[in-house]
Amino acid sequence: MKLDAIRVVLVRPQHPGNIGAAARAMKTMGLERLYIVAPAAEFPSYEAERRAAGSLDVLGGAIVTEDVDAATGDCRLVIGATARARTQSHPVLELRDCGRKLVAEAQGGEPVAVLFGPERTGLSNDDLNRCGYELRIPTSPTFSSLNLAAAVQLLGYEVHMAAIEAGLAAPPEHPEPAAGYPSQRDMEYFFAHLEETLDARGFTADARREVTFAKLRRLFGRARPHTGELKLMHSLVKLMRR
Amino acid sequence: MKLDAIRVVLVRPQHPGNIGAAARAMKTMGLERLYIVAPAAEFPSYEAERRAAGSLDVLGGAIVTEDVDAATGDCRLVIGATARARTQSHPVLELRDCGRKLVAEAQGGEPVAVLFGPERTGLSNDDLNRCGYELRIPTSPTFSSLNLAAAVQLLGYEVHMAAIEAGLAAPPEHPEPAAGYPSQRDMEYFFAHLEETLDARGFTADARREVTFAKLRRLFGRARPHTGELKLMHSLVKLMRR
Repeated sequence: MKLDAIRVVLVRPQHPGNIGAAARAMKTMGLERLYIVAPAAEFPSYEAERRAAGSLDVLGGAIVTEDVDAATGDCRLVIGATARARTQSHPVLELRDCGRKLVAEAQGGEPVAVLFGPERTGLSNDDLNRCGYELRIPTSPTFSSLNLAAAVQLLGYEVHMAAIEAGLAAPPEHPEPAAGYPSQRDMEYFFAHLEETLDARGFTADARREVTFAKLRRLFGRARPHTGELKLMHSLVKLMRR
Repeated sequence: MKLDAIRVVLVRPQHPGNIGAAARAMKTMGLERLYIVAPAAEFPSYEAERRAAGSLDVLGGAIVTEDVDAATGDCRLVIGATARARTQSHPVLELRDCGRKLVAEAQGGEPVAVLFGPERTGLSNDDLNRCGYELRIPTSPTFSSLNLAAAVQLLGYEVHMAAIEAGLAAPPEHPEPAAGYPSQRDMEYFFAHLEETLDARGFTADARREVTFAKLRRLFGRARPHTGELKLMHSLVKLMRR
């Protein structure tokens, strides 16, 4: 899978827990190439491993470098995540477009990278000068303070969605109910049973009869009962007889 | 803003840090109604407050209830987040559609809710029986283990995106460069300066001259220099004269 060409680069991260949580966020979305530039947090660390949960392979495979150049020197596209417009010089990619661009460019197999800055300060201007684009994640205008791993999670999600759109990742499966659905003939048999029973109990005045039956048809049509559920409904109708 | 009608309901959360991180995730995306059902984690707690960062208002305003019914009794739509298809009986909403449905239904002002289950086990069947839909968040098929707050972050993001689509939230601002752009006439003046200088230095053989000049025009056209940057380029061209 060519998502291997997409790197997540954490620049000078300050909290070990965020490194582990970022690894987990990446793996849930099919990203595995983690780079850590000059970590200010202890690394490796117990806290990072704890937060990584089942993504120790991504965390353990992380490449630690001294500077941004060592993490991105061979990349053909470098994007910097920023909370606000910073340089007034970079084209801005919104998150959804960024996911699509990364997936499209990664197909060539050449590495591409997204940089995330330190928790407190974000990327420095020096880091941003190494980027061709700024990534902007839409947030509430009154509170844009995304956690570092949360930002990585959102990037991963839009990369995954773009990979699905591009036919490179499998869409989520929505298994059909195992029981299967009754045929239209079975449904008509049920409605006949129901109507006959209601008539026998004198439930509906003549004038309202057709309207009530139509309402019941719409309700059960919308609910679309499975075969087993339809059997259950027959049993309830039988109870009404007594 | 009618996003107030959208509730995030954490059912029996186990880790105090996740409660705080969920509050922060919500606030970054404009969601503020947090419900916590029968917390297994200590709550309130220092760890929740630490992870909430600037969202102590959302965390402090959280409503703790004994059971799911108390948190959702007045809701007109209840959606349960699940990692895999569970009941085979609920219609499944994928995350993006879920965001749109929540925003659309919340416009009526009646409360709607999304339930997130305990970290280790997810929602119980009893919880799911109270839901009309299941929310599915697309993930890697080989590792779907989303952190609780990460799942809340993703939901909030798609709600925010749907609110932007619906004209209910402001799209992110992309301020135009303050410096402004030079006019087309200024660009022609620059190209004349550049071409005259290159000719004076005998840079291009006659046969290649037009091709080289066209390449330079395409490069500078694509870069779209600001007024200040164009001045800088004039200065560089002057250097070539000497």
